[in-house]
Amino acid sequence: MTEAPAQPRRLLVRDLAQLATPAPASGPMRGAHAGDVTILEGAYVLCEAGRVVEVGSMRKLGPLEGGDVEELDGSGRCAIPGLVDCHTHACFVGDRVEEFALRARGATYEELHAAGGGILSTVEATRAAGEEALVDAVTRHRDAMRRHGTTTFEAKSGYGLDRETELASLRAIRAARGVPTWLGAHAIPPEFDDGDAYLDFALAEVLPDAARLAAAADVFLERNAFDATQARRYLSACRETGLALRLHGDQFTEAGTIPLAIELGARSVDHLEATGDAGVDALAASDVTAVLLPASALFLGRPMPRARDLLDRGAIVALATDFNPGSAYCESLPLVASLAATQLRMGLEEILCALTVNPARVLGCADRKGRLAPGYDADLVLLGEPDWRYLAYHLAGDVVDAVLLGGEPLALG
Amino acid sequence: MTEAPAQPRRLLVRDLAQLATPAPASGPMRGAHAGDVTILEGAYVLCEAGRVVEVGSMRKLGPLEGGDVEELDGSGRCAIPGLVDCHTHACFVGDRVEEFALRARGATYEELHAAGGGILSTVEATRAAGEEALVDAVTRHRDAMRRHGTTTFEAKSGYGLDRETELASLRAIRAARGVPTWLGAHAIPPEFDDGDAYLDFALAEVLPDAARLAAAADVFLERNAFDATQARRYLSACRETGLALRLHGDQFTEAGTIPLAIELGARSVDHLEATGDAGVDALAASDVTAVLLPASALFLGRPMPRARDLLDRGAIVALATDFNPGSAYCESLPLVASLAATQLRMGLEEILCALTVNPARVLGCADRKGRLAPGYDADLVLLGEPDWRYLAYHLAGDVVDAVLLGGEPLALG
Repeated sequence: MTEAPAQPRRLLVRDLAQLATPAPASGPMRGAHAGDVTILEGAYVLCEAGRVVEVGSMRKLGPLEGGDVEELDGSGRCAIPGLVDCHTHACFVGDRVEEFALRARGATYEELHAAGGGILSTVEATRAAGEEALVDAVTRHRDAMRRHGTTTFEAKSGYGLDRETELASLRAIRAARGVPTWLGAHAIPPEFDDGDAYLDFALAEVLPDAARLAAAADVFLERNAFDATQARRYLSACRETGLALRLHGDQFTEAGTIPLAIELGARSVDHLEATGDAGVDALAASDVTAVLLPASALFLGRPMPRARDLLDRGAIVALATDFNPGSAYCESLPLVASLAATQLRMGLEEILCALTVNPARVLGCADRKGRLAPGYDADLVLLGEPDWRYLAYHLAGDVVDAVLLGGEPLALG
Repeated sequence: MTEAPAQPRRLLVRDLAQLATPAPASGPMRGAHAGDVTILEGAYVLCEAGRVVEVGSMRKLGPLEGGDVEELDGSGRCAIPGLVDCHTHACFVGDRVEEFALRARGATYEELHAAGGGILSTVEATRAAGEEALVDAVTRHRDAMRRHGTTTFEAKSGYGLDRETELASLRAIRAARGVPTWLGAHAIPPEFDDGDAYLDFALAEVLPDAARLAAAADVFLERNAFDATQARRYLSACRETGLALRLHGDQFTEAGTIPLAIELGARSVDHLEATGDAGVDALAASDVTAVLLPASALFLGRPMPRARDLLDRGAIVALATDFNPGSAYCESLPLVASLAATQLRMGLEEILCALTVNPARVLGCADRKGRLAPGYDADLVLLGEPDWRYLAYHLAGDVVDAVLLGGEPLALG
């Protein structure tokens, strides 16, 4: 007597008040398509073996064949794709609450940096922590992200800036199931006199192993960090190893980030609070995604990026938290959605695409993440609200009721 | 044989990482005292019969005499007083998510109001709801506030604007244990031609009963609502009945609110986004509290109020959510704290006072609420964070770990 092969697990999420997902598209959601969203009232999602196999209206749901199906009652709730956070610095220990308190009374970011706060204070704490503490830290922050509906997250190294801590950071991010980015060029660590000398070290001693561990490389192109010449050198070397490229740019000043990103075929330029007209036009005409970080602009009391101009001129726009201890202690993409609606003048459909399919493209997983459609990973957020747009409307609200990752409900704690 | 009298319940919250509370003061926290906060590292709070009886350092905690004491482990957590939200419009049904979505794409508050959205659309839904639905709604919103650490909340009527619904609203707020404010002059309902005719009705037909149910009266002094002459008439009549007075003012335009508030001895003027120098100076020289509502300014994409000027010139400042369906769908005072630190340039100690002792004064309960000190109600928030300042630092974070109301832990759901 032979046993039947084990059935792959099937889960039917039924009677959803609403389902909202970026519409099918062959490419990124840009320009006139930036907000193409499909809305179903009274919907179901059928998941099997971790993937979505059917999405539809309850009134068209026929009997399900082929074995047991678990059911999850979605009534009174709305389903959206699991959110994708494509820009976080979640691998650090310690905090910068003292710096936050000083800034609240008027000190600027750069003044605090010059006074010995800033990135290097986190570098010191992170170097001292050990890899196990880094795994714990990323996992704890990952769990907080999940409670806010994030099912796919990127995290950067960059608080090590030595060989051991950079590689430990990338391993910690992988251990927490994040998408790792080597931010080897985040700041110039104190043991180097200048950026060139530090890059000599980082490219010779860290890159070969970082390239095996990371999916992309990133650079902070800004005064007091790395200039365009140094960024070109760093990114070109990283590209040689097969890493995808990303850039922090135009946060405080325009320093040539956008032309460099386009020249090198980077996946994204992130921040863009200081971008002028020429930069907006150049990005809009390119395939480089503009990753906007309004929680960071809010946290620092800085101007917001020009989302409306970027979208109206046809750019590909993604939104992310920029979660980090210094300039955005915030794991919440729903808060970012609220800021996008109220500060960036983005329509709610544009916001949904900018939190799902477009950041998935930045992370190179848009074929599996960011949509609720057959073949995509069964990563779903169930909002405990009567309309999916409460995601942005309910400012700092507890909007996330349940999260499915690969078809499995997560214990959100 | 006689039984011993029942012991009042005693609860010891012990081993707190930190305790932060506004310092003892005979009057409101203003000017140089606006941020007087006492911080204890390694602290306890002893509660008995709903009140705080002792606050101190663990190292000075002696043996407790006189019967059983329950213990609550506060290790790794920080205690602050229960937060006091002195300005909400929590008594409504329905939502305005459609209006929010339109505004995200550029429509202004007043355009939406003129187009039939705005307050009157909520009035229509609230009038149709019935008192039981109002009790359910206020209770649900109250529970959300509690999850964010609010233990005392005010709520206004003002979405009825007829006799039956205004009185039902005030009863519903009382049923949910809120502090009720009669916002009889919120908008001019459609069945009246002008504000004077509506006030004739409201003062004759609603005020006599509203005065028995409410603790204060409030008016929306703004173009398209009520002017200063009408506001004086309304508030003077309310004052005759013994109600405390409050005013919505200077939200979009300056229209004489501050001089009127001072003339009438009002408890507060709320909003102040449009207040100029003379208004700031007049408020600072008065005993009228400036209630700032940065979540509302954020939600509407409006300028922030001039908190720094108000504080530096000596005004009494409180912060509140303005929770309402149209211009601030936000129950979270921790989010307001983050906005105060990042947008209003308030120091974190000033923020704590503006969320506790100062709003308690607006609500007339500063002798019992807003401080952790002997004799005060045992309303505590335990933050699941290593430093009390995460209240503002952890943007949209799940900072509230537990809430005690009158010494009883609440089930936060």
